[in-house]
Amino acid sequence: MSGDRTIINYSVLDEAIGYHLRRAQLAVFQDFTETFSELGLRPADFSVLLIIAHNPGLKQSEVAEALGIQRANFVAIIDGLQARGLAERRKSEEDRRVQALHLTAQGEAFAKTMMTRWAEHEKRFVDKLGGEDARDQLVQLLARLMG
Amino acid sequence: MSGDRTIINYSVLDEAIGYHLRRAQLAVFQDFTETFSELGLRPADFSVLLIIAHNPGLKQSEVAEALGIQRANFVAIIDGLQARGLAERRKSEEDRRVQALHLTAQGEAFAKTMMTRWAEHEKRFVDKLGGEDARDQLVQLLARLMG
Repeated sequence: MSGDRTIINYSVLDEAIGYHLRRAQLAVFQDFTETFSELGLRPADFSVLLIIAHNPGLKQSEVAEALGIQRANFVAIIDGLQARGLAERRKSEEDRRVQALHLTAQGEAFAKTMMTRWAEHEKRFVDKLGGEDARDQLVQLLARLMG
Repeated sequence: MSGDRTIINYSVLDEAIGYHLRRAQLAVFQDFTETFSELGLRPADFSVLLIIAHNPGLKQSEVAEALGIQRANFVAIIDGLQARGLAERRKSEEDRRVQALHLTAQGEAFAKTMMTRWAEHEKRFVDKLGGEDARDQLVQLLARLMG
């Protein structure tokens, strides 16, 4: 060996689904974090803002369930977005006991900036995959794992 | 609507790489956690034991780098495995200042049990994907994201 890089036997990790998923997810989330560090946005904040923007008036429990986020974590995310003036809880028009989620005017403007940045982030990984067909193939395979 | 399940517009999340990666990774890790709860093994413990089993005598830094685990986290993982009597640090034969990693006899036996359980876990997800060709395709696409 004498100074050469050690060759490592990865055994079953070479084809282990969970291992590759985790490493790929960390690589994508690291780029996400760098892309959004200036805007102070984590992946979960992004998803929540996006869902509220496209589905104003949803109940908290509906958004949390749609994204697979646990209740306690979800409440903390909404508290954070509300404290920043981006989203707000309003009493539902259908049922006054229920809190419905909306973006503020500031949140709407923020969402536009966010989407521009997101498109740049996403393009880097579509390019790494080799284009949109490969991306579609990947997303379809990943969806099977969730079923 | 009246009681119907609310239809949600996922916007770009429908094809977002990071979002699908994260949800698939959580689904696979949840199954992993359930599979290994009895053995008290987390995914990172599994990977570290596997690498040490197949590469006895590697330096701590080499194993950590191979798996992309940060130094502080890695030391905690090895401390845990050592406290359970599964792995141990020994002075390297090449350089007595360096700590090399080995499994104990108990660790070797544990690794065999672990691999049987792991094969069951993995098979569930290979089946969900539709077989080994689909698995190979997924692993290849995921590897592109890490590059």
